[in-house]
Order: sequence, then C-alpha cells, then structure tokens
Amino acid sequence: MATTVTLPGYTDVCEAYERIRTVVRRTPVISSSSVSQRAGRRCLFKCENFQRTGAFKFRGASNAVAALCEDECARGVATHSSGNHGAALALAAQSRNVKATIVMPENAVASKRRAVEAYGGVVRLCEATMQARISTLESVVHKDGAVSIPPYDHPAVIAGQGTAALELLEDIEPPELILTPVGGGGLLSGTALVARELAPQAAIIGVEPAGADDTRRSFLKGKRVTDVVPDTIADGLRATVGELTFPLIRENVDDIVVVDEDAIIDAMLFVWERMKIVIEPSAAVPVAALFGSDLRGRGTAAVIISGGNIDVSTVSDSFSKRT
Amino acid sequence: MATTVTLPGYTDVCEAYERIRTVVRRTPVISSSSVSQRAGRRCLFKCENFQRTGAFKFRGASNAVAALCEDECARGVATHSSGNHGAALALAAQSRNVKATIVMPENAVASKRRAVEAYGGVVRLCEATMQARISTLESVVHKDGAVSIPPYDHPAVIAGQGTAALELLEDIEPPELILTPVGGGGLLSGTALVARELAPQAAIIGVEPAGADDTRRSFLKGKRVTDVVPDTIADGLRATVGELTFPLIRENVDDIVVVDEDAIIDAMLFVWERMKIVIEPSAAVPVAALFGSDLRGRGTAAVIISGGNIDVSTVSDSFSKRT
Repeated sequence: MATTVTLPGYTDVCEAYERIRTVVRRTPVISSSSVSQRAGRRCLFKCENFQRTGAFKFRGASNAVAALCEDECARGVATHSSGNHGAALALAAQSRNVKATIVMPENAVASKRRAVEAYGGVVRLCEATMQARISTLESVVHKDGAVSIPPYDHPAVIAGQGTAALELLEDIEPPELILTPVGGGGLLSGTALVARELAPQAAIIGVEPAGADDTRRSFLKGKRVTDVVPDTIADGLRATVGELTFPLIRENVDDIVVVDEDAIIDAMLFVWERMKIVIEPSAAVPVAALFGSDLRGRGTAAVIISGGNIDVSTVSDSFSKRT
Repeated sequence: MATTVTLPGYTDVCEAYERIRTVVRRTPVISSSSVSQRAGRRCLFKCENFQRTGAFKFRGASNAVAALCEDECARGVATHSSGNHGAALALAAQSRNVKATIVMPENAVASKRRAVEAYGGVVRLCEATMQARISTLESVVHKDGAVSIPPYDHPAVIAGQGTAALELLEDIEPPELILTPVGGGGLLSGTALVARELAPQAAIIGVEPAGADDTRRSFLKGKRVTDVVPDTIADGLRATVGELTFPLIRENVDDIVVVDEDAIIDAMLFVWERMKIVIEPSAAVPVAALFGSDLRGRGTAAVIISGGNIDVSTVSDSFSKRT
C-alpha cells in the first residue's frame, strides 16, 4: 500500500510555530568566548537543552499533538521510544489532556521511564528489540485506536523541529554556518527548511558520529543507506535517517560531516566546564565538528544544542568516591 | 600591631557596583519547576556560575582592584589561592593592566592553574601547606611590593560580593528566604548587607557543610571558632569564617544551617539533571538545605549559586567507559 505524504515546507514551520508558541519555551541563544576561541570563529548556541523535557523533541511532538482533530484526541497518541521523544510526546499530550502510551524497551534507563510517567504518559514495557517495540506499538494502535506519532518521519514533527531555527534566526544575524546533529534527521531537515528561507547564504551542515554515519553515506550515495549498525555514545543519534527527512536533507543541506567518539566526549565536557551548561553527548556532536579542522573559517557558526538529558547516575560515582 | 578596619556597609556595596558594573556580567535569575516542586516552595537562582571566571569571586576581586590607586597598580597585586579567588584576581587585575601574582600550592588542580595563567596571572608554586602559602605570599609582598588581596577578609572584597544580591533584588520581589553558602563568609556577609536594606523581611540563611561547620559553631557561641578541620567535597567552603565577615554575619544573618555530604552531591546532580546548568559542590550546599526538612515553608526562596567550576577530569572516566 503506497501512501503519498507531502513533504513539509517553510510555511508549515511558520504555521507550526503559531500553534506551539504558547507551549514551547523560547530558549536563549548564548555565546562563549572559550568555545569561540577554540573553534577559531564566533559560535552561538541555541540552547534546546533548556527546552521543556530537556530537548528540542518537545517542539515536534507538540506540533503533532496540536494538529490532531477532536476524534483523534479522544483516541490518544502512542509511540515507541527509549529516550527524549517519549517524554516529549507524553508532556505534549498532557497539555491537551490527551492520553499518551509510550512503548519502552524493558532495559530503558530508569530515569527516562520516570520522566515519561512524571509527564502523565502510560508506559508499556516490551522486549528490548526493535521488532518487539514495533509490534507492541502496533497492538496499542490497533486495540486502543491510538494515533501513532513517530519520532521524526512525520511532516508535523519535522515542521515542529524547524521552529527552533525560526527563533534562532529571529534572534541573530544570518550566520555563515548552521549546524545540527543528525540522528533520524528531524531536526536537521526542519532547520534546513527555515535556513534556506531566512539565511540563504548560510551553509547548513549536519553532523553525525562516525559510528552512526548512515546519513553521510546516504548523502554521498544519493540514496538512503539503512544497514548501518550504530555504535556511539550519542544515544539520541542511533536512529536511521528517515524516508521523509532524507529527501529534505538531500535538497537543502550543504554537507554531512562526522566526528569520532573521543571528540564528542571532549567537546561535551569542554562545554560543561567552560559554559556551565549541561549538554548531552548527541548535542556535543556539532560542537566537536567546530573544534576539528574541517570547518575552519571566518564568520559566525550557529549550533542548535539539541538537548541536555543525561543520566546523572553515570557520573555520581565520581563524586561519591570524593576524587 | 592593631589595625582598625571599618566594616563595610550597604552604601559600600552600592559604590562597589558603580565601580564594577562594566566589568562584571549581570547574571540571570532563573527558576525551575522541578527544584521548586522538590523544595516545596518557589525557588529562584541567581546564577553566578555564569559570572566571568565561573564564580561570584570575580565581583569582590574586581572591586578590590578597582579601588587601588595608581601607585598600588604599578606595584601589582598578589594572593594565595588554590581555587576561584586566584583566577578571579588574575582576570580582575588583567582588565586594569595590573600584574597579579597568585601563590598556589604545588598540588593545586591543573585546570585551576591553567585558568590563572589564561587570565594573565603569574603563578608562584609553593608547598601544599598553609604556612608555605602565607610565607610565599609574604615574600611576594615584601620583595615586589605587591598589594595583598585576601579572598574574603577585606572590606572591598566583601562589598564587591554583595553586588550579586544587589542585582538579584533589583530583578525579583523581596523573597521570604535568601540563602548563600558560607566558607570564609564574604558572599554571605555582603549579601546580608544588601538584604537588610532591600528585603528587610527576608530571613537570611547561610548554609555550610556539616564537615566544615565553623561558622555555625561561631554563630552559636557568639565568638569565632577557628579550630575546625574542614572535611568536605565543597572545596570552596573549606575556609574559616573571617575576622571582618564574622561580625557582619552575627549582626545581619538570621541563621546558619548545615547539610551533609550526600545531600550536597545529590542536590548538585539534581540541578545538573533538571536545570541543565553546571554548579559546583559548594554552590549546591544551599540547594541541599532547601531539599531538607528544616527550611520548609511558604514563600519564595532565592539562592545565590556561587559558582560552576568543576574539574571535568573528575567525571570524564564515566563517559570513556561508555556506561
């Protein structure tokens, strides 16, 4: 069964913003002389780590929920997620009084599960395989009639993610470079739609971990490469570029570059230490690219910091030991 | 030789602010629903972790340097420090083109030493004893004629630290509680001078680690207790309450409360995780008090977040291991 889906455009992002501007937080754009000095150019950060639920994902989920009709609202929404999208959808649904069922693998990090529940989401655990996640979600959709809201391959989600760039380019002069991380491509494709319109001279760069470089391979080949097995600390970027996001990326993005794992961790900790903000590994990926040699040049680089959700139990031992 | 030093007052803080307002950063006041929920009351944070050099210390150091006459500027300034005051004095001196010599123990954290040097300070290493620190500083003062700027027991330093509260109380309605951490007492005494004037109904609370509770003991006894051997992760609070700061605290502060080490680490990581800002252990001390049972009540609590300087090498192993 072939379904025709219309790809979203710039006006969809503008309409999304009108829908969600009262629920999303307008996040600050901040600079840091330490980061700029190390990158060799002025760097500006659009801080979606300060977004509600701690990640840009809340924008896309809110727009998808806002676009539901009354009947769909009554049926509720559902998704499978081990991370930020589940929490984002739960909160977005809660603010419209819509039931959200989040299918989570049974090995999901406890803090992520608690976040979903704190936002009023109903957690349905399943085995930790993609197959189990998909079939459990299908059963929720079939039995409850819930509307499935996927994490990125959905026009309203892509348009919603683009609203971060809309705010960014209202706040700053058009930069030379605009960077985002790439996992499934929702943030990058939404950003590119906006940047093409409001900053046509800017180079739009997606950055991926070398261990999850399906988008770069797809970009070079001109065709989606879906057999990359992701191996990266950047847990938000382990997804495969989407059927909707890829053509938008191909059309509107200038380049996809990759960074290695050590560079990601180093960039993340540099930002923690110098900027005093908590960013997650996925968010550090474009920062790592700016610290590398490939993107040297003049002019401002604007980075969308995708999120700040870390599991602090990861680092708590470091302090309990009193090093 | 008895020296009479006049204790600073509210007008000294106002004058300090006129001197330093162009060099210090006006830091934001932010709120967090997660923190407020856990504390059971609205909490507002004055974020001195975003201050230049990553801590409020830059305010006091800047005011002390701004107050120097030309002759003193020519002689340079000096201090001994293993932490934030050294970096603050180095940068404050640099912005007036004044030489700063920072005596540091040879076991000082490498990142702190690099920070002092990055701000143009001259590092003089000495043995890691308080005696060696004092005698090395004395020799710098004698040989070079440098002006010694101590970390807290100095009227211009206390007045400078009070400017954080001045900004805070310009930005918000008078709160029920105002909290700061206490080490040597510079921040607390400066804050109290301002709060007494601008928020006379507010209770002003200093918070100390239980393992470095000299100020609480002094407060209860009405006399400085100087024989407490500090044992706490909050490295900024290992100092002994000062000869100038203590009478100001006795006069203007409502209570000194203590928190234990686990509560400090827990509060720090809670803020990292929920607010996405990096605060150092010392800054988490008053947050830990708000999460405890002693300070329950209605009304807003305003906390001065003292700094965000952590040594990321402490936590980097957690990520390299890929947990």
